[in-house]
Amino acid sequence: MSYKKENNTSFALGAYAVCEALRAMPNLVRRIYTSRELVVTDEISAILATARKSNIVVEDGTKLLKRVGGKDNIYLMAEFDKFSDTFDHSDQIVLHNPSDMGNVGTILRTALGFGVKNVAFIKPCVDVFNPRVVRASQGAIFSLNIRVFDSWEDYLAENAQIPKYLFMLDRNAQILQKTPCPSTPKALVFGNEATGLPASLKSCGIPTIIQHSTEIDSLNLGVAVSIALYHFSKI
Amino acid sequence: MSYKKENNTSFALGAYAVCEALRAMPNLVRRIYTSRELVVTDEISAILATARKSNIVVEDGTKLLKRVGGKDNIYLMAEFDKFSDTFDHSDQIVLHNPSDMGNVGTILRTALGFGVKNVAFIKPCVDVFNPRVVRASQGAIFSLNIRVFDSWEDYLAENAQIPKYLFMLDRNAQILQKTPCPSTPKALVFGNEATGLPASLKSCGIPTIIQHSTEIDSLNLGVAVSIALYHFSKI
Repeated sequence: MSYKKENNTSFALGAYAVCEALRAMPNLVRRIYTSRELVVTDEISAILATARKSNIVVEDGTKLLKRVGGKDNIYLMAEFDKFSDTFDHSDQIVLHNPSDMGNVGTILRTALGFGVKNVAFIKPCVDVFNPRVVRASQGAIFSLNIRVFDSWEDYLAENAQIPKYLFMLDRNAQILQKTPCPSTPKALVFGNEATGLPASLKSCGIPTIIQHSTEIDSLNLGVAVSIALYHFSKI
Repeated sequence: MSYKKENNTSFALGAYAVCEALRAMPNLVRRIYTSRELVVTDEISAILATARKSNIVVEDGTKLLKRVGGKDNIYLMAEFDKFSDTFDHSDQIVLHNPSDMGNVGTILRTALGFGVKNVAFIKPCVDVFNPRVVRASQGAIFSLNIRVFDSWEDYLAENAQIPKYLFMLDRNAQILQKTPCPSTPKALVFGNEATGLPASLKSCGIPTIIQHSTEIDSLNLGVAVSIALYHFSKI
């Protein structure tokens, strides 16, 4: 057994992510696996004690850790139930067809860092619960409200009212640098790394661009989301 | 022959990076390699014509492309001389001991996007000219002034006067969000992904932090640099 997209469970790899899973969502943690090579420091002892206190089984998983962790030498991981949250009425990040797991993980971490807790994914997109995404998020995924929608229409059906800033190339796009932060909740919407947001979405919100020099084609997706989060952040 | 850190040359992989190398630094391009699998579109024809016009040899490198490109299927690359630039008197990004090639490439691209052309690296650090860095920068590296310094002291010796914003945890650090953009050139200095800037550097500039929620430990290095570039950008 190792990780498959179709499984109902996934893995949080490494002490930091395990710790975050146990802290934020103990009820979803099924099991903790340790490697025979794990060095039991005080921090690790505390993590294992926390797990046992919540009646979570801690067992040897040396071989499984090798298979799931691959080249990264992972000595500790948590198996957790994949989840789907409901959104609260605060700000949202919406990722339309993102394809890079590292990017998505970094975005989740940054979203939590700037207090945006609702993150929507529009399919087709990366497997949000892939251990690589969970790891790149440094466990931030467990503290966020995550929703995966089959289509943009499905997302809209539940989120028609919230004002949407659509990050896209459009000749009438407003420039982020000159955009004041509204006091009401908003959704920041970003397209795929290579293709951006489809022009057909334009009427659903306010096309917005991050102005940059003409010497580059575009900003990296993770960079664009981070800048938008920073710009609108009230932290 | 494939890429080695000790070589005097490196490779720009893929049409986009090759194009940027030919545009920004044609004198440094030694040779263009094509794969037998290369599909010669109009764009590719134009690139090859540009190379030939500059008397750059274009030759078959099917096997070499496989070795250098690895899993990424690369059908076109340029071999170029590694270079060291002089800085002009405008803003600088200083990366102290960065270790992640993808991060560094993304930072180079973002720096160019926000018009900061001087980028210093303080050793030990990634191999700045590794093909993976060049690729992650999308060729931005060819339009920047790149300097690699053996130590912080070496950097300081040449850049004593420029005001330095040191991104580090320090209880007296000023908050970026409340920091006005000075009209004079400045250096934005960032530490290693895992360890940050050493506390010993504190007296060399103005300790600065990007305020974020306590729910995350720190921002990703690329994210932090991007936010700082955006904050101070006059674009």
